[in-house]
Amino acid sequence: MIVVMKHGATARQIANVIARIEQLGFRTHLSEGVERTIIGIIGNERPLDKEQIVRWDGVEKIVPILHPFKLASRDFQPEDTVVSLNGIRIGGKAVVVMAGPCAVESRQQLLEIAQAVKAAGATILRGGAFKPRTSPYSFQGLGLEGLEILAEARAQTGLLVVTEVVSPDQVPLVGTYADILQIGARNMQNYALLQAVGKAHKPVLLKRGMMSTIEELLMSAEYILSQGNERLMLCERGIRTFETYTRNTLDINAVPLLKQLTHLPVIVDPSHGTGKWELVTAVSRAAVAAGADGLLIEVHNHPEQALSDGAQSLKPERFAELMTELRRVAEAVGRTL
Amino acid sequence: MIVVMKHGATARQIANVIARIEQLGFRTHLSEGVERTIIGIIGNERPLDKEQIVRWDGVEKIVPILHPFKLASRDFQPEDTVVSLNGIRIGGKAVVVMAGPCAVESRQQLLEIAQAVKAAGATILRGGAFKPRTSPYSFQGLGLEGLEILAEARAQTGLLVVTEVVSPDQVPLVGTYADILQIGARNMQNYALLQAVGKAHKPVLLKRGMMSTIEELLMSAEYILSQGNERLMLCERGIRTFETYTRNTLDINAVPLLKQLTHLPVIVDPSHGTGKWELVTAVSRAAVAAGADGLLIEVHNHPEQALSDGAQSLKPERFAELMTELRRVAEAVGRTL
Amino acid sequence: MIVVMKHGATARQIANVIARIEQLGFRTHLSEGVERTIIGIIGNERPLDKEQIVRWDGVEKIVPILHPFKLASRDFQPEDTVVSLNGIRIGGKAVVVMAGPCAVESRQQLLEIAQAVKAAGATILRGGAFKPRTSPYSFQGLGLEGLEILAEARAQTGLLVVTEVVSPDQVPLVGTYADILQIGARNMQNYALLQAVGKAHKPVLLKRGMMSTIEELLMSAEYILSQGNERLMLCERGIRTFETYTRNTLDINAVPLLKQLTHLPVIVDPSHGTGKWELVTAVSRAAVAAGADGLLIEVHNHPEQALSDGAQSLKPERFAELMTELRRVAEAVGRTL
Amino acid sequence: MIVVMKHGATARQIANVIARIEQLGFRTHLSEGVERTIIGIIGNERPLDKEQIVRWDGVEKIVPILHPFKLASRDFQPEDTVVSLNGIRIGGKAVVVMAGPCAVESRQQLLEIAQAVKAAGATILRGGAFKPRTSPYSFQGLGLEGLEILAEARAQTGLLVVTEVVSPDQVPLVGTYADILQIGARNMQNYALLQAVGKAHKPVLLKRGMMSTIEELLMSAEYILSQGNERLMLCERGIRTFETYTRNTLDINAVPLLKQLTHLPVIVDPSHGTGKWELVTAVSRAAVAAGADGLLIEVHNHPEQALSDGAQSLKPERFAELMTELRRVAEAVGRTL
Repeated sequence: MIVVMKHGATARQIANVIARIEQLGFRTHLSEGVERTIIGIIGNERPLDKEQIVRWDGVEKIVPILHPFKLASRDFQPEDTVVSLNGIRIGGKAVVVMAGPCAVESRQQLLEIAQAVKAAGATILRGGAFKPRTSPYSFQGLGLEGLEILAEARAQTGLLVVTEVVSPDQVPLVGTYADILQIGARNMQNYALLQAVGKAHKPVLLKRGMMSTIEELLMSAEYILSQGNERLMLCERGIRTFETYTRNTLDINAVPLLKQLTHLPVIVDPSHGTGKWELVTAVSRAAVAAGADGLLIEVHNHPEQALSDGAQSLKPERFAELMTELRRVAEAVGRTL
Repeated sequence: MIVVMKHGATARQIANVIARIEQLGFRTHLSEGVERTIIGIIGNERPLDKEQIVRWDGVEKIVPILHPFKLASRDFQPEDTVVSLNGIRIGGKAVVVMAGPCAVESRQQLLEIAQAVKAAGATILRGGAFKPRTSPYSFQGLGLEGLEILAEARAQTGLLVVTEVVSPDQVPLVGTYADILQIGARNMQNYALLQAVGKAHKPVLLKRGMMSTIEELLMSAEYILSQGNERLMLCERGIRTFETYTRNTLDINAVPLLKQLTHLPVIVDPSHGTGKWELVTAVSRAAVAAGADGLLIEVHNHPEQALSDGAQSLKPERFAELMTELRRVAEAVGRTL
Repeated sequence: MIVVMKHGATARQIANVIARIEQLGFRTHLSEGVERTIIGIIGNERPLDKEQIVRWDGVEKIVPILHPFKLASRDFQPEDTVVSLNGIRIGGKAVVVMAGPCAVESRQQLLEIAQAVKAAGATILRGGAFKPRTSPYSFQGLGLEGLEILAEARAQTGLLVVTEVVSPDQVPLVGTYADILQIGARNMQNYALLQAVGKAHKPVLLKRGMMSTIEELLMSAEYILSQGNERLMLCERGIRTFETYTRNTLDINAVPLLKQLTHLPVIVDPSHGTGKWELVTAVSRAAVAAGADGLLIEVHNHPEQALSDGAQSLKPERFAELMTELRRVAEAVGRTL
Repeated sequence: MIVVMKHGATARQIANVIARIEQLGFRTHLSEGVERTIIGIIGNERPLDKEQIVRWDGVEKIVPILHPFKLASRDFQPEDTVVSLNGIRIGGKAVVVMAGPCAVESRQQLLEIAQAVKAAGATILRGGAFKPRTSPYSFQGLGLEGLEILAEARAQTGLLVVTEVVSPDQVPLVGTYADILQIGARNMQNYALLQAVGKAHKPVLLKRGMMSTIEELLMSAEYILSQGNERLMLCERGIRTFETYTRNTLDINAVPLLKQLTHLPVIVDPSHGTGKWELVTAVSRAAVAAGADGLLIEVHNHPEQALSDGAQSLKPERFAELMTELRRVAEAVGRTL
């Protein structure tokens, strides 16, 4: 961490800053420049509160040097994390496809879709039982009944199940039915929830908030990792920008950037990332070409009647075509599907 | 709601769309233009799912006509909501000032600050006992002990207490100590929590998410109102933009805009809205000049040692000066303080 | 265009709006809903000024129905535009790669890079002679000398040349040397310049502004097309968002979206789109997988001495590897390179 | 400037970086931390290209310490710049109001509005003769005729004239008619134009780009100042965010922040900053309360027929009321109007 002193800071102010930092147990390094004096703080700066130090007399600003995340970083763990469950390896050579409806709407709907995505090559079934919706007047999910239907689909198809958990007290219940616990974008900074899944014995899929930076995503990952749960995947699902033709702007840069910064597997959700089914195929191909370890894709047998996300859901036939295209792209970049 | 058909949609597609809408119990209104045919849907469009309809054959896009919120709107309730508690009226002629530290750190800290803000003219004390923090390595609040210290400060000073609640199961506990339940920006779309405070018998201060539109803020208000809790205040606290010199960009437009769209009181938080104490005074004056019904301001007796938000906290003396300045501005716009 | 009347608009206000629209030569279509009355305007709405109409008595808002661009739209021209020059077809089956340094710095630098990108398979050489720079203290380009060096590189290598033009009076000069005139992101809404290149007899590469929507990009294209110049390509080069780990956020959604909305070729600039050379390869592959017709890539033989954009420039060897990878991805999506 | 070396950088890499910096004529300062080694560069870092240095072997990132602007900074000139012309002092105690239509549409229109704003207390008349418009099909301004009408209005009323200049070759012409040259938001980074007005002998009003940071605004100011023109004012006019209920988000924080960073006067444009006339009054009051030195307000006698910006223009009567309100707010913050 670097403390930049104000233009014209006095010798006394500089001495005081040094003394206070050393009292906190850090060594310091003074460098007097032409326009500014700066003081380097040597050691693990993460526990220091830069908002305090910036208020010390004569201080202009504080510049962190280290990434604030640690367990999630490549510095800490250089080799890739591979999340293994039931023979599926997420973060390995094969690109993993998770597909299914936004919400579980009925037994028939889910079983039909599950069969279809299985036939096309998906290995994990997605589907929401508890749905966070912008409007209190929208369908809020089937709850427990939805979880039971998911379990039935798993039994029938052999697909694993990923589903969202929305409050800490639900973690045990959802964990009974799900293979992977999903933290939705709106809950990326719901720390009570992050701590709860950090203590669970289930893999977690953590979605990036729609207006969260990569650093904040990694800090939320740090909450989960620091509770001891290392079976964690990150998911880029589009961020909010000024563009209005698409629901979100999928941040394709995030894929290689995350692969560089962290050892955790990176999943991409092109359905939320675009909000338009017509764009999902092209953006899915792009995600695999960019190095994604997996995709999370919304598929619905009747999007024109879907209770949520109809506009961005692929029909099963289109999804099957997409899988064929993805296989070719995966091979072109040295992966399999 | 308007259904815009694609350029070249067939007569059969148009007839089908009309038939399906009428099956749903709505009247329709057909208008054949030169480049596009459009179909108006007559009635309360709110329960309709535009994501479904956009998937019907021949449909290009859907244009909502009505605001999606209802209970929160001026259409529904033209006169201002005034939240009264213990003789304080929020949303009336007087501008209400809520002040105090970001977090309760100790008994001595809080009592000292409470006395100071009371002396300067604040009527409500703010202070967090449960703190959502970006980093798992930061101070997370004193919890129950913090609530007890807040209650003691109230008993000593007569100030009312506003404090944050971060999970649904905490609502009863926090409600025992707080006069106003605060929903923080990161939880604006934590719907389980919104429903819980919607059922509580306490006034609620709902902060706008840093990534949320005005419409989404009002939809979150709708969650609370639709559960029966009408003692609700909204709080503009700055949004995330590309600007990096400030922590957030305070959306001053939101103040008169919210006063136009909704009957609910509008509070402004210039501390989070700027992130820099040097800007808080000017922006507080601006908020009152723009028509805010109240302010939420962070005050700390020792910002250089504060366990959170030191950079944006005013010292008590500066806060007292601000109150003097605010009184003049309030009078200039026909309010009192 | 739809005129939405205010809740409670009077019969007289409605009649007045209808009369005024009809005076302007449009037919209208009245639809009285439960909460709002709306008036459809039938005809080519593009010349209408919605900012005027929204001020008419009783009007709440105006909703456009048609895209504001016309010549650039697929409605107007369903088949793809292919820009042909010197045997190179941009917008056809082959993906075209334009590569070279950000700025022409010297004769030796440019010739060396030109040879290298030619050898790796690029067909068009990029290089700036006039450089718009954020700081007045940065290198501003070699000007005319830079253009002459570009022409020499073309003569030596057979590569075509794309270079930026920054003011209307320079168009004839730059046009003498360049094969393709580039409009930079900062000038996307420099309308005097757009009109000047619209009258030129040279193909144009129009870069999306870092702050511009897809619709605004297409409106700027419309400026050029409406002057008669149809040899136009669009370029996605990243937009500004709140994310700070990358220089810009490359909008990968824009690729398939533009292919759907417009007939113009779509080029992607992964160098500016990421700002980091380590990300350029992955994002280039993604762009081709998403359907881009071409790439614009910064290559420098000595990035550690480059006078601009060193951080995002590939070295020639890395560029050659990228070309190999791109060839495989192009084939996987049915294209060639 | 601080060079942060990669985790695990070798002694040789560190020595090389130091040697190269010293070759450039700077002293260095080495600080070996636990996780990272950093090298401080001592001296005026502004001419250094951080994009080069980040490519040197073993370098992770570069952290600038100094603001990149100099002439515009308070460090360089601590006392306020006051732009005086014809007895009006912009940047002094009095808040200056510039008002008038978006575009000059006709002699009668402009003269009528000029009389009205003069009567209400404005001292400067705004009005565009050359209009940059998003659509090529929109009204583009009267050009020279518009300038002549502005001059006539000045002669009749004694108001000074501010009007936009959109290309470098127009600067002499516009300068003949205008008292203040306006650089519009879309041209904030049109450097050819900035250099041209930097050489002109007229005061300049530089508007912030709709997606430009404060730092970029100050860098554009630096272009003008470095050409020798010191009679410069900055204008906050709203930035582009994700919010869609307003045209832009007026950045009220920018007012006190700019007053802190720079000595230049700060003007606020609440018309573009909101895009809605109903919000202009409240936001104008806020701007004055926040410390703005002036306002730029759109006034039109017939907004319902205005050829541009009708939705955000005040009618003369409303403007007169606003002036009365502003006077009270100005006095409350120790200013006059």
